[in-house]
Amino acid sequence: MPDEQRPRVVIVGAGFGGLEASKKLACEEVKLTVLDRTNYHLFQPLLYQVATAALSPADIAAPVRAILHDCKKVEVILGEVQSVDVNKRLVHTGDLRVTYDYLILATGARHSYFGHPEWERLAPGLKSLEDAVEIRRRILMAFEYAEKMYAENTGDAAQRSGAMTFVIVGGGPTGVEMAGAIAEISRYTMARDFRYIDPSKARVILIESEPQVLAAFPEDLRNSAMKQLQDLGVEVRTGVRASDLTEEGLRVGDEYIRSRVKIWAAGNNASFVGKSLGVPVDRVGRVIVNDDLTIPGHPEVQVIGDLANFTNQYQEPLPGVSPVAMQQGRHAARNILGMIEGRPPQRFWYFDKGSMATIGRNKAVADLHAVHLSGFPAWLVWLFVHIIFLVGFRNRIVVLLQWAWSYVTFNKGARLITRNFQAETRPPA
Amino acid sequence: MPDEQRPRVVIVGAGFGGLEASKKLACEEVKLTVLDRTNYHLFQPLLYQVATAALSPADIAAPVRAILHDCKKVEVILGEVQSVDVNKRLVHTGDLRVTYDYLILATGARHSYFGHPEWERLAPGLKSLEDAVEIRRRILMAFEYAEKMYAENTGDAAQRSGAMTFVIVGGGPTGVEMAGAIAEISRYTMARDFRYIDPSKARVILIESEPQVLAAFPEDLRNSAMKQLQDLGVEVRTGVRASDLTEEGLRVGDEYIRSRVKIWAAGNNASFVGKSLGVPVDRVGRVIVNDDLTIPGHPEVQVIGDLANFTNQYQEPLPGVSPVAMQQGRHAARNILGMIEGRPPQRFWYFDKGSMATIGRNKAVADLHAVHLSGFPAWLVWLFVHIIFLVGFRNRIVVLLQWAWSYVTFNKGARLITRNFQAETRPPA
Repeated sequence: MPDEQRPRVVIVGAGFGGLEASKKLACEEVKLTVLDRTNYHLFQPLLYQVATAALSPADIAAPVRAILHDCKKVEVILGEVQSVDVNKRLVHTGDLRVTYDYLILATGARHSYFGHPEWERLAPGLKSLEDAVEIRRRILMAFEYAEKMYAENTGDAAQRSGAMTFVIVGGGPTGVEMAGAIAEISRYTMARDFRYIDPSKARVILIESEPQVLAAFPEDLRNSAMKQLQDLGVEVRTGVRASDLTEEGLRVGDEYIRSRVKIWAAGNNASFVGKSLGVPVDRVGRVIVNDDLTIPGHPEVQVIGDLANFTNQYQEPLPGVSPVAMQQGRHAARNILGMIEGRPPQRFWYFDKGSMATIGRNKAVADLHAVHLSGFPAWLVWLFVHIIFLVGFRNRIVVLLQWAWSYVTFNKGARLITRNFQAETRPPA
Repeated sequence: MPDEQRPRVVIVGAGFGGLEASKKLACEEVKLTVLDRTNYHLFQPLLYQVATAALSPADIAAPVRAILHDCKKVEVILGEVQSVDVNKRLVHTGDLRVTYDYLILATGARHSYFGHPEWERLAPGLKSLEDAVEIRRRILMAFEYAEKMYAENTGDAAQRSGAMTFVIVGGGPTGVEMAGAIAEISRYTMARDFRYIDPSKARVILIESEPQVLAAFPEDLRNSAMKQLQDLGVEVRTGVRASDLTEEGLRVGDEYIRSRVKIWAAGNNASFVGKSLGVPVDRVGRVIVNDDLTIPGHPEVQVIGDLANFTNQYQEPLPGVSPVAMQQGRHAARNILGMIEGRPPQRFWYFDKGSMATIGRNKAVADLHAVHLSGFPAWLVWLFVHIIFLVGFRNRIVVLLQWAWSYVTFNKGARLITRNFQAETRPPA
């Protein structure tokens, strides 16, 4: 079929959902355009390992062009979508307008600060590689800063303890993974490297407003996770909320905690692009989609992944996890191929294979429905699944190798404090 | 010996020279302080591979603390030295004053823009990891930008060709390596990934003011390097200088070249710290040292590496390369141990084993004095030497693996366009 006659399919976002849809449509008889604001697909489940110096950014990212390059027809454009005009079938970026016959919108979510956007600077969240590198910088700098205070004999007791107190707000999988990884770095990796401070004395505090961490997991695994965290020396505070964040610390319930490094893992807001569709969105900005992933009145527009509020047969919205996004991506692609041939879009069913969270070396929980695992077996399953799903053969080998090295030596390979390029080369005023 | 009675040795800079000196003194009966403005030792000879997406920053860097942690007595401080007061025996950082009995100053060099500091923003040089990541971003963005112009049908012929023209100013080893690597990326790695543009048509122009590139090499190798560059499609312009740099291009001799990405590899200025010693410095700010590496009037102060102008028996200053710095680092450490025992500092002799430059896959030149190699054998020697000298067992394995993968697949593993953290999280105005 000549290029001009092919239906134009636009996919916005190359996360788990958008990439699966892209891979399914890349070699079909459509004119496919993939838009993303970065040039890579990011394997978000391992982002916390970049933030804790175990992996490099490139280990968990792969260029979208390279992933899709077997199909010469795909157009990949680097650009940040601002809005969608569903009536004119137009996608707007800052400097570009892209028309479509079929659209898959998969722009995901960012963290939400419950009406306190000024907290983002004080307690960054973990969604992008830039976030991860900044959090890594803050964690590593905290130890350097504490060492310097002791070396110079400056700072009072509160400042010194605040420098080595890490607070993670939010006890979902990301919060649990970050708390465990920071505890391990301080207990093992950094322990021998300082002269004045003892990094293993660092406090790691995990805050969760629900009565237990990992609220979405079954009770036995929630308890197990709690115990495994405590074994690592993580202080878990449940049933309390964070407030009054400043550079020096934060309030947790009634208590004031002095803490230089704070990390946010507490909530998500869907991407603002969803609101431009002109259809109902939920409290956190997710687009309420039909049971076939299309939006009301526009079967040519499908919304998937963290941007979609898809209500399952139990009247609950599906969680914002990668298996949901990937299955929806493939389903949306199939819907488009069907519609092109004149069939209506089909209902989406989520096949839930279970969920996992890792806590540290030999420590994890895995809910596989039929069986609940914790500790070493759960950790092995977690390892295996993450290596399998990581995109790119090279990445798999490099990550496996670095994990093996870290496992044997207790070291981490990416302990770099990098600065800001612009700060260094600002032209003289 | 109790801590307080040990002589205080301060080493400023953890590059090749400072690190060698630190390793030699770390377990001796001295109170050793190592000051650096980063927390890692950087293996600069492979920095161009980070800039061209072949390696990740962490692959060529290792934390100074971790390298020295076997000797508990070493103090490592993250700080940028501003000046030295040789009379009071004091080193000043922004917020810290460190006293010494013996000092080794090894703060290296930055690129120099021949009186045009405003060119740094337009044509970054390659000294730090931040530099490398920024250059990588510019190279990868150039192709994205060109693709976008064709996709949207914008830009005139000059703009389109300027987007895919890369100019490297300076034909020393770094310039040659960068030119070769950019040519290879465009010819092999990127070639299949774009829909509108043909990355293999990218122009790579290498500019050298001398009559030939690699001026420090023997003539047969200079000729061979020139030929190997041309085989890769690099346009080499010798005997001309760059001027009039702007965002869009630059003047090269009489010719105006439209070029979006310009890279500076043309000259070095020694670190400003040298000038604070109050002893003579040369034209590029290098401290003119005695034949034992000490400075006039202060045998307790030694200056090494790129910061030192050391004149050899042929009345030529030694070049700013890592073997010089490493040998000087070890010598300076030995001098200090001797002085502590009452012996005067000894004359330094440089043992020159030869020099190498790599151009690309199977392409290099190596001057080993007794034998001149070029092409594949030179490339093998280069590979072997760089793996051997890379610090850290993990880094060696990871780099070897990535090179093997790149060699077989023609791909590069770190094709990430990362943005600025601050830009993303700037608090609302």
